[in-house]
Amino acid sequence: MAVELETIVSLCKRRGFIFQSSEIYGGLGGAWDYGPLGVELKKNLKCAWWRDNVYARDDMEGLDAAILMHPRVWEASGHVAGFTDPLVDCKQCKKRFRADHVSGPGCPECGGELTEPRAVQFDVQDLSSARWSERSGPCLPAAGDGTGDFRQLSRTCSTRRAAKLPFGIAQIGKAFRNEITPRHFTFRTREFEQMEIEYFVPPASADEWFDYWVKERYRWYLKYGMRPDHLRLRQHGPEELAHYARATYDVEYRFPMGWLELEGIAHRGDFDLKAHAQASGRNLTYFDDRTRERYFPYVIEPSAGVDRAALAFLVDAYREEEVRGRRRVVLRLHPALAPIKVAVLPLLRNRAEVVELARKLYADLRRRFPADYNDTGAIGKLYARQDEVGTPFCVTVDVQTLEDHQVTVRDRDTTEQVRLALDQVVAYLQDKLAVD
Amino acid sequence: MAVELETIVSLCKRRGFIFQSSEIYGGLGGAWDYGPLGVELKKNLKCAWWRDNVYARDDMEGLDAAILMHPRVWEASGHVAGFTDPLVDCKQCKKRFRADHVSGPGCPECGGELTEPRAVQFDVQDLSSARWSERSGPCLPAAGDGTGDFRQLSRTCSTRRAAKLPFGIAQIGKAFRNEITPRHFTFRTREFEQMEIEYFVPPASADEWFDYWVKERYRWYLKYGMRPDHLRLRQHGPEELAHYARATYDVEYRFPMGWLELEGIAHRGDFDLKAHAQASGRNLTYFDDRTRERYFPYVIEPSAGVDRAALAFLVDAYREEEVRGRRRVVLRLHPALAPIKVAVLPLLRNRAEVVELARKLYADLRRRFPADYNDTGAIGKLYARQDEVGTPFCVTVDVQTLEDHQVTVRDRDTTEQVRLALDQVVAYLQDKLAVD
Repeated sequence: MAVELETIVSLCKRRGFIFQSSEIYGGLGGAWDYGPLGVELKKNLKCAWWRDNVYARDDMEGLDAAILMHPRVWEASGHVAGFTDPLVDCKQCKKRFRADHVSGPGCPECGGELTEPRAVQFDVQDLSSARWSERSGPCLPAAGDGTGDFRQLSRTCSTRRAAKLPFGIAQIGKAFRNEITPRHFTFRTREFEQMEIEYFVPPASADEWFDYWVKERYRWYLKYGMRPDHLRLRQHGPEELAHYARATYDVEYRFPMGWLELEGIAHRGDFDLKAHAQASGRNLTYFDDRTRERYFPYVIEPSAGVDRAALAFLVDAYREEEVRGRRRVVLRLHPALAPIKVAVLPLLRNRAEVVELARKLYADLRRRFPADYNDTGAIGKLYARQDEVGTPFCVTVDVQTLEDHQVTVRDRDTTEQVRLALDQVVAYLQDKLAVD
Repeated sequence: MAVELETIVSLCKRRGFIFQSSEIYGGLGGAWDYGPLGVELKKNLKCAWWRDNVYARDDMEGLDAAILMHPRVWEASGHVAGFTDPLVDCKQCKKRFRADHVSGPGCPECGGELTEPRAVQFDVQDLSSARWSERSGPCLPAAGDGTGDFRQLSRTCSTRRAAKLPFGIAQIGKAFRNEITPRHFTFRTREFEQMEIEYFVPPASADEWFDYWVKERYRWYLKYGMRPDHLRLRQHGPEELAHYARATYDVEYRFPMGWLELEGIAHRGDFDLKAHAQASGRNLTYFDDRTRERYFPYVIEPSAGVDRAALAFLVDAYREEEVRGRRRVVLRLHPALAPIKVAVLPLLRNRAEVVELARKLYADLRRRFPADYNDTGAIGKLYARQDEVGTPFCVTVDVQTLEDHQVTVRDRDTTEQVRLALDQVVAYLQDKLAVD
């Protein structure tokens, strides 16, 4: 059964994952605010990506480059025009104008309705490419002159890896695009977050590394529980290939509105480094001391959207089920992505000793896991609320706990319950919530 | 002994904490890139702030609001002019002009040199205030009508807290300001990250809550090891108080260039909510069912700079010391802030069994802590490198380890060494690195 996008939008609003920006002013198209649970979901996604791509690898370093850059960076990427000019777009004919060239309220060409002027004018593809390709300069081993920043970069964390290709840099950051028709909830927006890798390789093995990253990034979504039949790889045809790319694959997810891109993996060849070497006058080549050759490294760039991934994981996890005769809505989120890992629910909130014990357990658990405490309803309702936001485990404290010092731990997916000693709960959850 | 700013700049560049943006193009004033260690330091700071202000509290929820907002939000904050206009500033007379109003290369007033047009034009104070005050609308309990978004917000994570004042929202995000003269390294820049709290309180207890937050935020820096004699609170005089503030304290750090602001805690009264109620036509008052009164909540806003905090902690941690007749540079960073928590150093990199054991230990440790592995020099040099970036613990593996399965753990601050069984290292580090 396919879920409607509206169902997800409604759940997100109801439970504070995501709601519309500037809502008291009637909302702003294409901009969304993440509420308490949405913040945690995004944070968990970014942590998982960082853990898998930076911490777990010896060939990758993290970076946080400024969004504002030297104008010549933009010039080199061929889009200095419009850099600071406020633009408007015609909603009808889709033509774009400089705001100060338009006098009336309507499109000078067709009379159609115009968008409001955009504060930030970059096209996302250009933004990320410019941001990254700019970094490729300083990050690249300018071996031989002894002053290359790449060597500094590699010295920082360690010398666990020599300053040799292949080598990558990873970054997470905000990006903006001048989206004319924001739509599909958080899928197509003007402001969003990107998780990007710029991976430098010798030209001779670039095709192999491209294959590697395409498969690796596809597998990443499966690792966090995405359903394989909802995920596919699609190669760009020659007509849609960007001017800088030798080849591109998209990881696509089967959204309610169709198959759409979560991430693009681009084989950029030596486009970036050549352009920046030319524009800066710096020697950005690399000397390969194994093959005794000097060349511009090739760049493989896997670039994923945080917001799109968050939306896809929400859609993918959503289920309406019947369990033991009761209907329920459950988000079967991977434990690593679930905003709340465990909820403590006292069965009798009027029994001071039960509440005290439950509070104590909660205080203990929240030091280790994002946890919740809830005593505002009957247990069935409390379980339902936690299921709906994807909390993997609920722990109930009852009168019997006062005697046997045991609690009941309920599993979100199976709804099965186990009885555990109080002092075993932490170890049990640590084991269940561990990510390899 | 006071450290010079240049010493910190040099260390940051040499070890990849922070370097200048767009460096291959000669650099861009006021924009800096964070390298591998800088990213981790900033991340650790943000995590610590989030943990202490969101996870550890029952009266705070996290939020990630869009940077782009409805123009009327900006209008309500009184700075819609210049919102999308590229501006230039005269470096000499400091006057500001719209870029498209200036034809020549020099200032129309005094002929001085002009800055480049800015892509993003917001004043930071306005940006954060507008962003936040906009949120105060939807987040505020519009009790009585039953549709207030505040109630949704409070339902999301739990019902562990009733939708009652006092209540706060917390956010971390990028901000921009049209800084005319960026200076002091990362202290005064055009692009930076803010950690902000908007805390809503009943007017009757606003002064108490203001005091509370001033002290609480001051203590936060001490908690992470900042030297008390390098930290002070300073109250704004009437002449420097912003138009929206009833009172403001700055937490100031004693930088090499003087006492400068790390964080401001503003008592904003009902300025924001009244302005937004008026602009949006919404009822943003709150009904207090204890006192049976209806009022605009007051807002206390602690707003801290991530980049400034990172710089202050670096400066504060920096020491040049003599230990057992050897000079060393050491960053005495709090373990929670240190980018690398533990380094594994094999004493004999030519002994395959030693390297194998060290690699195995490293693989085990890095699953739990940001860890490093380094075998590229003599042990003294390896220790020195880790001291310089603030790694709290080094573990050496030697020939004896092959027999007794013990390793040497060295403490960064005391340089004292303890011999531990291999299977005790994780527990030892977990204990030493724990944050309350």
